[in-house]
Amino acid sequence: MDDKSKITVVIDVMGSDKGPATIVKGACQALEDSADLVVCLVGDESSIKAALEENGAPMDRVRIVGTTDVITNYDHPVAAIQKKTDASLVKALTILRDDPACVGLVNAGSTGALLVGSMMFLSNPGERVRPALAAVLPAENGGFVCLVDTGANIDCLPSMLVQFAHQGSQFMKDMYRLENPKVGLLSNGAEETKGNKLVKETHQMLKEDKTINFVGNIEGTNALSGDCDVLVCDGFAGNQVLKNSEGIARRIIMDIVKYAKQTGEPKFMALVQHLMATYDFNSLGGGIVLGVTKPVIKAHGAANEASIRNTVKMLVNLAHNKNIYV
Amino acid sequence: MDDKSKITVVIDVMGSDKGPATIVKGACQALEDSADLVVCLVGDESSIKAALEENGAPMDRVRIVGTTDVITNYDHPVAAIQKKTDASLVKALTILRDDPACVGLVNAGSTGALLVGSMMFLSNPGERVRPALAAVLPAENGGFVCLVDTGANIDCLPSMLVQFAHQGSQFMKDMYRLENPKVGLLSNGAEETKGNKLVKETHQMLKEDKTINFVGNIEGTNALSGDCDVLVCDGFAGNQVLKNSEGIARRIIMDIVKYAKQTGEPKFMALVQHLMATYDFNSLGGGIVLGVTKPVIKAHGAANEASIRNTVKMLVNLAHNKNIYV
Repeated sequence: MDDKSKITVVIDVMGSDKGPATIVKGACQALEDSADLVVCLVGDESSIKAALEENGAPMDRVRIVGTTDVITNYDHPVAAIQKKTDASLVKALTILRDDPACVGLVNAGSTGALLVGSMMFLSNPGERVRPALAAVLPAENGGFVCLVDTGANIDCLPSMLVQFAHQGSQFMKDMYRLENPKVGLLSNGAEETKGNKLVKETHQMLKEDKTINFVGNIEGTNALSGDCDVLVCDGFAGNQVLKNSEGIARRIIMDIVKYAKQTGEPKFMALVQHLMATYDFNSLGGGIVLGVTKPVIKAHGAANEASIRNTVKMLVNLAHNKNIYV
Repeated sequence: MDDKSKITVVIDVMGSDKGPATIVKGACQALEDSADLVVCLVGDESSIKAALEENGAPMDRVRIVGTTDVITNYDHPVAAIQKKTDASLVKALTILRDDPACVGLVNAGSTGALLVGSMMFLSNPGERVRPALAAVLPAENGGFVCLVDTGANIDCLPSMLVQFAHQGSQFMKDMYRLENPKVGLLSNGAEETKGNKLVKETHQMLKEDKTINFVGNIEGTNALSGDCDVLVCDGFAGNQVLKNSEGIARRIIMDIVKYAKQTGEPKFMALVQHLMATYDFNSLGGGIVLGVTKPVIKAHGAANEASIRNTVKMLVNLAHNKNIYV
């Protein structure tokens, strides 16, 4: 395999809760998954080198870009992106934008800075597309639901929700090769007449849009049932669905752990492991920035190496699909 | 015990998915729970009588009010309340309003009609209070969270959310004898700066209101953690929290049932029963209409007898507390 057939994923190793070593470990695991993958690791050089050595990484498929600054959750996103020119995220975005071999970026730091940076570095020229933050969640029917927006756009206009519908639809085509993704609109009832002002107006616009496969309103009970492949909502409501699902699943699993300990029945722990794998709403790679020129994925701040590995895998899959993501 | 020390709960037995017999059965169980309870059953007389006989009800504590009409989910709420003067719900609301012995009403039919009817029959005179629909949900810390609004008021102004805060706070004082219920505001982040326009404006108003115990914004992950006793939000967001919680809990429990069947391990079924009892977000009695002169509870359309029994018990508890609910 020559270098041209290889694809490069840029990974900002800084800014996560668990530190660079965990991110690099996940990157090394991703290298084992895909023989045509190159990772470009951006951040503190000595930390990166130490972690690479520890994991016995194939160095011919690793690029290291040393940086001395980092953007944290305490920085103001816009100011930080503009002023911290040697921050790992700014370097990573620059490389992603300028190097045609680079197919996407992973970051586990500040969501706000990643969104602002994605807008500033990766906007579609000539288009007024507002980037959205999506999450791919495991559906009850065994498939996946792309929830969009999950918190980037808190106050929305109907036209923005229509944009989210298109962005989510395109992503599900590219990511899972779905031919005609079903688009649902989150509401407080399945009937067309249900919804707040925003949802009612959006419903009419989506109904008239023949370029997407709109299946109508979806209630909260069925948000993740799999009745739709893309679930459209404003960032406030989407944030509730995402975080509430996480909260309830975690609570029930913790309850089972307690129950298992009380009964002393070892078989319950296998069940707990099954549930943790099935209902870990973070494992699929945190947030995906839609509406930019190249895919950018926000891993959870507390992402472990498995989560980083999955996230990189998503970007490899996207790059392998011909229908290039925009 | 003379008649004056007895309290009467009005029960509309019509309009539920499971039919009058289930509602009457739940009422009979509630009579067993409370010796000072009288139930006033409103609806189809022959169905009520048959169900009472079947359950061996103590007839000295039962009143029957026969009606010939019923309001369904297909009726327009306002028109139905105005025109169907012999409907069970209209009769039940009239009795509740006019009879001082009656302390509350249970109905498992149309939510819209119940809300409209509550407004028309039970408004606080001289006050412009908008009724809200609340749900009492089991919190992670073992307590309860009063979620308000859950769907009666879909598009809200900040002043309405402040009203919900007061109504929920008063309800938790009356229902659980909490001295100073903690009031949280549902948002997309705990920080004061997080939220949509409605939430940000409401946050400032709640912060300045010294008559309630405002504890700040609550994220979706912690919606039911018990960090607050009252969780305030617009009806659209509240509906998402309520229905999403139901949906995720049901899904995980069904998954465990499947897993239990596959492994053939009988001990899993005890766990399933434990989880079903803990995470049945309906068992506490569906929706509670707040902001009216007497408490009105909307049981789930599919409520079983246990659910009706619990709902009646709530009304008995409220009536026993001196700090009378308004």
